[in-house]
Amino acid sequence: MTHENSVGIVEAQSFTFAEDDPFCLESGATLSPVTIAYETYGRLNADRSNAILIAHALSGSAHAAGYHSEQDTKPGWWDDCIGPGKAFDTNRFFVICSNVIGSCYGSTSPADINPAVGKPYGLLFPVVTVGDWVRAQIKLIEHLGIEKLLCVAGGSMGGMQVLEWAAHHPDRVHATIPIATTAAHSPMLIAFSEVGRQAIYADSAWNQGNYYGADRKPDAGLAVARMVGHITYLSEESMHEKFGRRLRDLERYGYEFQTEFEIESYLKYNGNSFTRRFDANSYLYVTKAMDYFDLSAPTGSLAATFVNSAHIKYLVVSFTSDWLYPSYHSKKLVSALTAVGADVTYLDVKSAWGHDAFLLEVETMTDLISSFLERLAREENVARPEPTSDNLATKITLATLPRSSEEERRLKIEALA
Amino acid sequence: MTHENSVGIVEAQSFTFAEDDPFCLESGATLSPVTIAYETYGRLNADRSNAILIAHALSGSAHAAGYHSEQDTKPGWWDDCIGPGKAFDTNRFFVICSNVIGSCYGSTSPADINPAVGKPYGLLFPVVTVGDWVRAQIKLIEHLGIEKLLCVAGGSMGGMQVLEWAAHHPDRVHATIPIATTAAHSPMLIAFSEVGRQAIYADSAWNQGNYYGADRKPDAGLAVARMVGHITYLSEESMHEKFGRRLRDLERYGYEFQTEFEIESYLKYNGNSFTRRFDANSYLYVTKAMDYFDLSAPTGSLAATFVNSAHIKYLVVSFTSDWLYPSYHSKKLVSALTAVGADVTYLDVKSAWGHDAFLLEVETMTDLISSFLERLAREENVARPEPTSDNLATKITLATLPRSSEEERRLKIEALA
Repeated sequence: MTHENSVGIVEAQSFTFAEDDPFCLESGATLSPVTIAYETYGRLNADRSNAILIAHALSGSAHAAGYHSEQDTKPGWWDDCIGPGKAFDTNRFFVICSNVIGSCYGSTSPADINPAVGKPYGLLFPVVTVGDWVRAQIKLIEHLGIEKLLCVAGGSMGGMQVLEWAAHHPDRVHATIPIATTAAHSPMLIAFSEVGRQAIYADSAWNQGNYYGADRKPDAGLAVARMVGHITYLSEESMHEKFGRRLRDLERYGYEFQTEFEIESYLKYNGNSFTRRFDANSYLYVTKAMDYFDLSAPTGSLAATFVNSAHIKYLVVSFTSDWLYPSYHSKKLVSALTAVGADVTYLDVKSAWGHDAFLLEVETMTDLISSFLERLAREENVARPEPTSDNLATKITLATLPRSSEEERRLKIEALA
Repeated sequence: MTHENSVGIVEAQSFTFAEDDPFCLESGATLSPVTIAYETYGRLNADRSNAILIAHALSGSAHAAGYHSEQDTKPGWWDDCIGPGKAFDTNRFFVICSNVIGSCYGSTSPADINPAVGKPYGLLFPVVTVGDWVRAQIKLIEHLGIEKLLCVAGGSMGGMQVLEWAAHHPDRVHATIPIATTAAHSPMLIAFSEVGRQAIYADSAWNQGNYYGADRKPDAGLAVARMVGHITYLSEESMHEKFGRRLRDLERYGYEFQTEFEIESYLKYNGNSFTRRFDANSYLYVTKAMDYFDLSAPTGSLAATFVNSAHIKYLVVSFTSDWLYPSYHSKKLVSALTAVGADVTYLDVKSAWGHDAFLLEVETMTDLISSFLERLAREENVARPEPTSDNLATKITLATLPRSSEEERRLKIEALA
């Protein structure tokens, strides 16, 4: 990673709506007001036709690229792919990333004050869906003066939002890039979600979701949930390569229950650090939204779901060792999209990294995405934004330290999923 | 399942040793006394050459076949394969199954009184290994007057014991049947073990293992550990077939956090019922023993490990959809065994049932095992046991109710793994 092609220092922004007119959710419940945290990178062109929305995964945030200050050493979660000359080239495109409702990175969430009772929502927060998230994103792009997005892109849970845009708001988007995702959350995905939630419920500090301001948070339960998640993001093969059966700081077995194997240490580290940056109730809401995601349910078939979305261009990507979102989910999607006559590019990328591959296979992703967007920009006659005299982003010198590639990989994975 | 070929009513037995001379463990610690719970089915022949040891999996017990009383409606965990005319034909063979040390089904465990302090061991119980388990099984067969086993068989954790017999006690066994197993616990298996243990540690009722006699047990943590396990025993395909995205007792989403999807209900049911039959500390000890299992570590290669085990006959079985113990583990084993010149029969059984397949693919397993044992008995000149005048087992009428095959499958899976 070089800082020459960083978007530089970026600003956390937010947009609040539904203050007077409540936001109606799929469940029938309402939410008022609704705040959406977001960031933007690059500049909108004159006819507002170069906007790309990036949708984040389970534990992601609106901070997809750049740094929040000169002292900040950790870039946004998809910094590898967003920036000048990168896959999502901010010299050409205006890139937006927003935090989903219910998550804990600035958008309205269970930790916020419930205006009806004057204390945090906790479990009184309404259950939200992927459909609700996307309808809130539409409010955001309208607020930014954008009628139609050039593209929506995202991996994993982000890919679900991408498909929701294509299926239910086909006139709002020219192209979509669903990566390592599915059109219907599988029973195995629901099972892992539920185990994570049960680990949180089992923590006595969770207290039915009422722990804001209390002495204890359900950190132990949330850490277990995250550990389960981390196993599922890796492949058996990558675990062998990365950890094998190596012991940590030991020559031989200790015959006790302290952390011994490197894989144990990795899981504990990630589980514990997650509790410092994520909220347990948000984990419940975000996973529940994913579990409810099933695009084919209302119509009975995926092809019927996309029948009005045939004019959209699709770049579908899956990874051979991803057993959490196996390639055949993407293949079913591709089959439905081609059945309705859509323009689909599909690649099942050979990778040993499991589900994490979508953040780690940077070179392949860059090739795929940049050539897809280049073609798109050409076909849609997307003008470059006006040059500015003062391009702060590319000039800034950041106080970041050089990092090893293993360390970079760890941070990337930590930021993911 | 018909009762005509049941072993009938069986008796839970136990054998205690190391009362004066402590049992030395691989860790260097000792245990005294040591009790091994076991059961036997069929009869030993005159020259004691027809004995087969069955090794159980993670949550299994010595109760592998038959019923404990006439009112008992639930047979032993491998009743499908052990009985007159079944895969392990009790008309021909004397079948033994014993509970591993540290487990909670009658063998010495953390819940037993530590003679040094007069209260339950808890975490003062020494860490045991697969090697320790097998050396205790040798004490048991010696107690039963058996010098050499005709065969040792088992799936999953049972298969590890089978391989331990072959690698480290090659003169004690003519043949082995390792099923759906590995010669070295993989980092993914360790990862899932550790998440289960962390879920138990995270339960405040666990109290560092001191909960015997307390008001609360770490049931919530143990249930989460078991739920994780249950996901790993299934395949993505079998989950689709068995549960899909079906809701339980609901027409549409409830938009709340109660159990909704059938897969959630399945996991919760199995997690909770497990807490009524298994001990949380035992879960820690048994999983730790599995994590330590690595037959190639001392020699550096699997072939070197089995160099003195070439005279043993092997029937190795794996299942195509088993992602927890993927087929390539068995293939590596087969490759090492053939390299040393052993007689190996290997089958990668095409099955959609994931790791559970070893208990569910009864017909295939019966064909494979019975023909392997038939050849073995012929080649080793194994005489049939003397007929008895009163063969209780095959005459008994049991007060069991007819069960649907889905119900049977559920009970089998519950009893497993």
